[in-house]
Amino acid sequence: MPRTPPAARSAYPAFYQLPTRWMDNDQYGHMNNVIHYSLIDTAVTHWQLEQAVFDMSGAKTRFLVVESGCIYHDEARFPDLIHAGIRVSHIGTSSWRYEVGLFQNQRQTAFAEGFFAQVQVESESGAPLPLDPEFRRCLETLCPPETPL
Amino acid sequence: MPRTPPAARSAYPAFYQLPTRWMDNDQYGHMNNVIHYSLIDTAVTHWQLEQAVFDMSGAKTRFLVVESGCIYHDEARFPDLIHAGIRVSHIGTSSWRYEVGLFQNQRQTAFAEGFFAQVQVESESGAPLPLDPEFRRCLETLCPPETPL
Amino acid sequence: MPRTPPAARSAYPAFYQLPTRWMDNDQYGHMNNVIHYSLIDTAVTHWQLEQAVFDMSGAKTRFLVVESGCIYHDEARFPDLIHAGIRVSHIGTSSWRYEVGLFQNQRQTAFAEGFFAQVQVESESGAPLPLDPEFRRCLETLCPPETPL
Amino acid sequence: MPRTPPAARSAYPAFYQLPTRWMDNDQYGHMNNVIHYSLIDTAVTHWQLEQAVFDMSGAKTRFLVVESGCIYHDEARFPDLIHAGIRVSHIGTSSWRYEVGLFQNQRQTAFAEGFFAQVQVESESGAPLPLDPEFRRCLETLCPPETPL
Repeated sequence: MPRTPPAARSAYPAFYQLPTRWMDNDQYGHMNNVIHYSLIDTAVTHWQLEQAVFDMSGAKTRFLVVESGCIYHDEARFPDLIHAGIRVSHIGTSSWRYEVGLFQNQRQTAFAEGFFAQVQVESESGAPLPLDPEFRRCLETLCPPETPL
Repeated sequence: MPRTPPAARSAYPAFYQLPTRWMDNDQYGHMNNVIHYSLIDTAVTHWQLEQAVFDMSGAKTRFLVVESGCIYHDEARFPDLIHAGIRVSHIGTSSWRYEVGLFQNQRQTAFAEGFFAQVQVESESGAPLPLDPEFRRCLETLCPPETPL
Repeated sequence: MPRTPPAARSAYPAFYQLPTRWMDNDQYGHMNNVIHYSLIDTAVTHWQLEQAVFDMSGAKTRFLVVESGCIYHDEARFPDLIHAGIRVSHIGTSSWRYEVGLFQNQRQTAFAEGFFAQVQVESESGAPLPLDPEFRRCLETLCPPETPL
Repeated sequence: MPRTPPAARSAYPAFYQLPTRWMDNDQYGHMNNVIHYSLIDTAVTHWQLEQAVFDMSGAKTRFLVVESGCIYHDEARFPDLIHAGIRVSHIGTSSWRYEVGLFQNQRQTAFAEGFFAQVQVESESGAPLPLDPEFRRCLETLCPPETPL
C-alpha cells in the first residue's frame, strides 16, 4: 500500500468546523473509523446547502453517493474540533467527486482524507440527470487551480 | 400527560454549541429522537472536562448514567445549530442530576429538555464513590439560585 | 432515587432480537447510554410495522415521540445480543406509551428499562389525531393483564 | 468511473446477519451511506472474535483501520435484514485487507461492497507488529480459492 503523505490545509479551498461528540469515541478511546464518513457527509451537505442549488428534501432530484473512501493517517478523538476541508477532483456529466481532508484542532496536516463520489438522479425514476450549468460552476469553484479539468 | 411549558435560555447557566449532522435527520426529515441524548451526553462531558476533575479515561473512577429522559416540545433538524444549556437539579452523596435544555438556532425557548442522572463509581469494583468536595463545588455552580439545596 | 428492581422477561409480551454493533461501545468499553434509545426505537418500529397499520413513509400521519426515558440497571456491550421486550402501559385518545425492557443474551432480568410516549399527528398540520379502533386494539394486545386500563 | 457488476453471495466465504435500525434511514428514506461502514466494521469484528486471537480490549495489540472504502450499487433501508459476506483479498507482513459484500434480505447480488485495510500495532508504541502465524492462518481461510496469494 503506497501511501501519499497527509495533505496540508492549503490543499482545500473551503472549510467547515465539525465538533466531535462523546459517543464518537469507541472502545479504543479514539474516534471510530465510521464517524469520519459522517463528518465528510455533513461538510459536503453544508457546502451544497450554501450553494442554494441543493434540494435537501429530495423531492425532485437527489444526490446519491455511489462510492466513498477514506485513508486514515492518524487518530482523532472527542473532544477534538475537526476542521473539514473540501475540494472537487472530478466533474462528469451527471456525477462528480468531492475530496475531504479532516484536520484536528490546530494541526496543519490532515489526520484523514476521504472522498465522496455523487451522482444526480431524478428522484422518481432514479435515472442519472446531467448537472445544470449553475451547479457545475459551483463545483468548479472547489477545483484546486493545479488540477485543470 | 400534563406538560410544563418549554424553558427559556435563562433557566440554564452554562451553554455549549452543538452542530447537527446530516445523518441526524431520520426518515421524517427531522432530528431523530435518539440524537438528543447524544447532544446531552456531549454537552455534559464538555462541561465535566472543563472542570478538570473528570478522568475521561475511566481508569480509576467512572461517571455512569443511571437514568436519563427527554421531553420533546418541538422538532429540530439538520442543519440547525443546537445550543445546549446545562443546570444541576440534584446533588446527592455519590450521584447527581443534570438537566439540559436544547435550543435551536436563535430560538429562545427549548425544543427539548432532558436529564442525565449520574453516579460516581470506582472503576474496578463498580461501587459508588462519594463525591469529593471539589467536584461538589463545581456542580453547585450549575444549580439555579431559585433551587436551594 | 428509589429504584424498582429489574423486570423479568415475563413482564413483556412481545420480543425482538437486536444485535449490538462494534461502534455501540464507547470509550468505557460498554454500550453507550444513547444506543439504548436506538434499540427501543427499533423494537417499537418493528412491532408497529407488523401491525400493518403504520405508514412508515409518514405521508399522511406520523407517530411522534413526545417523551422518552431509560433506567440503566447494568451495562451491556458489543457483541451482546439484546432481546427487547415491549409492553404498552398507557393508551389515551391520540397518544400511548410503550415500555421496553432490554435483556442481554440469556439473562432473565433486564439490564435497562425504557419508555417511549408517542402521539399520532396529521403530517401536514401536526395536529393530534385520535387513534383508530384497529390500532387501539393492536396496542391493547401489548397491555399486561395485571394492568387494567 | 468503470464499475464492476455487483458480486454474488458465492464470492464470500463467511456471512453475518446484521439487522438495520430505524435511525439508519436518513431523510431520503434509505440507509445512510455511513451505516454501511458500521455494518462492515461489525461483521469483521464478529469474525475476529470468533477466531479467538483478537484482544478486543486493545490492551497489548490493536487492529487499526488504515483505509476503507465502499461502492454503492443500490439502496437498502430499515427494516431490511443485511447479510454481510467477508473475504480477505490481501495479507501482508503486519497488514491485511477485508472485502465485505452487503446483501439485502433474500437478494443474491450485493447492494454494496466495501473494504477495510487493517494493520496490527503495538498498543503503547503504535508500531506495526507482524502477524503471528495463527492469525495468518485464520485470515487465509477467508481468501477465495481463485485468488492465490
